[in-house]
Amino acid sequence: MTLHARTALLPEGWARDVRLVLAGGRIERVTAGTPPQPGDHRAGSVIPGLPNLHSHAFQRGFSGLTEQRGPGPDSFWTWREMMYRFALNLTPEAMQAIAALAYVEMLEAGFTRVGEFHYLHHRPDGSRYDDPAEMSCRIFAAAEETGISLTHLPVFYAHGGFGPKPAGEGQRRFLDDIDGFARLVEACDGMARGQDRVGLAPHSLRAATMEQITALAQAFPGRPLHLHIAEQVQEVEDCLAFCDQRPVAYLLDRAPVGPEWCLIHATHLTPAEVQGIADRGAVVGLCPITEANLGDGIFPAEPFLAAGGRFGFGTDSNVQITAAGEARMLEYSQRLHRRARNLCADTGSTGARLVLGAARGGAQALGAPAPQIAAGAPADLVALHDPMGLDMADDHVLDRWVFGRDLTVADVWAMGRHVVRDGRHIARDGIVQAAAKACRALI
Amino acid sequence: MTLHARTALLPEGWARDVRLVLAGGRIERVTAGTPPQPGDHRAGSVIPGLPNLHSHAFQRGFSGLTEQRGPGPDSFWTWREMMYRFALNLTPEAMQAIAALAYVEMLEAGFTRVGEFHYLHHRPDGSRYDDPAEMSCRIFAAAEETGISLTHLPVFYAHGGFGPKPAGEGQRRFLDDIDGFARLVEACDGMARGQDRVGLAPHSLRAATMEQITALAQAFPGRPLHLHIAEQVQEVEDCLAFCDQRPVAYLLDRAPVGPEWCLIHATHLTPAEVQGIADRGAVVGLCPITEANLGDGIFPAEPFLAAGGRFGFGTDSNVQITAAGEARMLEYSQRLHRRARNLCADTGSTGARLVLGAARGGAQALGAPAPQIAAGAPADLVALHDPMGLDMADDHVLDRWVFGRDLTVADVWAMGRHVVRDGRHIARDGIVQAAAKACRALI
Repeated sequence: MTLHARTALLPEGWARDVRLVLAGGRIERVTAGTPPQPGDHRAGSVIPGLPNLHSHAFQRGFSGLTEQRGPGPDSFWTWREMMYRFALNLTPEAMQAIAALAYVEMLEAGFTRVGEFHYLHHRPDGSRYDDPAEMSCRIFAAAEETGISLTHLPVFYAHGGFGPKPAGEGQRRFLDDIDGFARLVEACDGMARGQDRVGLAPHSLRAATMEQITALAQAFPGRPLHLHIAEQVQEVEDCLAFCDQRPVAYLLDRAPVGPEWCLIHATHLTPAEVQGIADRGAVVGLCPITEANLGDGIFPAEPFLAAGGRFGFGTDSNVQITAAGEARMLEYSQRLHRRARNLCADTGSTGARLVLGAARGGAQALGAPAPQIAAGAPADLVALHDPMGLDMADDHVLDRWVFGRDLTVADVWAMGRHVVRDGRHIARDGIVQAAAKACRALI
Repeated sequence: MTLHARTALLPEGWARDVRLVLAGGRIERVTAGTPPQPGDHRAGSVIPGLPNLHSHAFQRGFSGLTEQRGPGPDSFWTWREMMYRFALNLTPEAMQAIAALAYVEMLEAGFTRVGEFHYLHHRPDGSRYDDPAEMSCRIFAAAEETGISLTHLPVFYAHGGFGPKPAGEGQRRFLDDIDGFARLVEACDGMARGQDRVGLAPHSLRAATMEQITALAQAFPGRPLHLHIAEQVQEVEDCLAFCDQRPVAYLLDRAPVGPEWCLIHATHLTPAEVQGIADRGAVVGLCPITEANLGDGIFPAEPFLAAGGRFGFGTDSNVQITAAGEARMLEYSQRLHRRARNLCADTGSTGARLVLGAARGGAQALGAPAPQIAAGAPADLVALHDPMGLDMADDHVLDRWVFGRDLTVADVWAMGRHVVRDGRHIARDGIVQAAAKACRALI
């Protein structure tokens, strides 16, 4: 198919009147400064599809249902108890239905690839399914159903805390040993479409020992390797008690952290840890909306960006699913804390700095090609609609999308398929119905 | 007309199967536990329409266009320069067109009344229009055009800083003396529909002296009186340099602050100031999205709520227009700062605490009846749609709306007029066109 964009963000910058020919899931030809031809789909401002580097799709099912306070103080840890209760009852069918809904909403938000950090492997009683990859299979099926590209990140989870402490009852669906995990990765490789990737995710320093993490990194070289780290102050304190080092310092000292690593959250960092992550070329996986929702704390974005740190955005708990909103929440957390404006920009556009920085970093973390509108690149495209018709061909487009009121995602092409039209995924109705049924049975 | 709600929030709590008869702009009859009748409009969860206690409608016109950083540090004060440039070119026609767009979007967001803090009175050269109330007239016309109820708050602006300092060139369209201002209030009274109110807004301690503020309060007793206060640290420091007191302490000591007063922002407060505002029964006008965008700082919500403080929400700069989003941003600012969850709730629902608290406080600040679904009340109603069909009849509805992904505003009735249907204002298309034309001429 062909589309004609009033403005588009090309590798060399914004251009007007850009005609794109899509074929075989890729962009075949890009021509700027040319009028539309009959049959072209007419679009507003077209940008590359964005990567969502951290999702727990099933958590979409209880979006907005953990915002009540019990008799005591509320925290990440009380939230986690509620999340476990939901997780323990999830069937494979519900997993697929809810993941498909989350992926529909991600595509509608402008995400064309998701990194699914997947830890719900086993039956509710903790035993393996007949097919041990049953639950991963459901994630691949949801990706196929919706058209989103998938970087599947099966989680290795062995322990309940530093030490290591034994895992708790609520964690029984997550647990594996190295051999069982290796078989899972192999099974996932067999399910991957051409555009998909399979990485690995030792859950955290709480759930995997340093020996296990380094063994996994050696066993699966070159794959995306993600782990949660330094999200909560409690975790930093537990790590200090365990080894007299903070989590990120401990990891950088002992693990072969490099560009294929993604440190999810990394909220609580010293200046030396900031510099250390940047020097290794690893990506920090920021999930600003979830981090606000869970009361994690404020990421030191200014020093991290000044050090040349790489970052991407994830929707994590999927309490909301919005690419623009993640960028906005990160910048707003900085503004509230530092009482100044445009803190994530050196100079120029804050929206562009955040969206394009996260596009590059997210793709790196997910083992995917850098998002770009160029011949030969995957045809992952997002068209923004501007009812005000300001017809801008510069970074104000991204500022207005991230911070403003006007621009919305009108169309999305995922591997060349026109899956979002007029803001709605083409399979939305059926997928919402199935997810609603699954959620009503769980809540 | 009649509508039937699957669930509705009545004064005594959530009820199922609620039938509402609307007549003459009011709710005529409320019947719970009754099936729908032929011809009833079928709605999901119905809540009272919400008050938006602080808007500068024209600022909607440059939403998202101030998110770039120049060579130096960026702050509220650099933003204000950009805002002044936009303000200086605004025609009366553009004022009406952009205000109408903002009010359409407010109704679509669930706001059925707006407090318009209106300071753009004069011609671009600072001289009066032939009708000195020309610009206020445009605000009333925009409210009429869209159906939103208006509490008009003409601004008294005399000075450029504490001392007082003379006003600057960029402020020439705002300035008035007490006599001119009194004539403006009188003219506004003549334009008000039955549901409208006219209050007054001495802009801030920077723009009006304490003598002027108290003179205005005495000249117009009983009307809503709004002023900006303690938004920026610089303002607190300037006030300390001027009178050796912080702004709120200075105001509480010398002005007859009471329940009809609304202190906009009041971001930077000592514990004594928190208690002082609460004791006077005044409302704090929180604008969490704008306060994040402008880098104002984090409001001390926990101690203020613990002291029994009253609050409402305003969309202020209208960089975004969302009732749910203002509540969410306030709670998230607290969570990020305090690293805990559900901080604005004592116990129970955070969404309900914020939405219903802001509904009561906002109505008080705007001189309007308390929002409620009861016979005799204004027929200002918001119907939320839940594609997941969870069919809840409790405060989870408000949690899900504020924090979650599912609930959206489907229908809004403003004084009994069904102005928002399927999420869109009935006059949206024409109003967007007019506003777009006005903005294209200004940007």
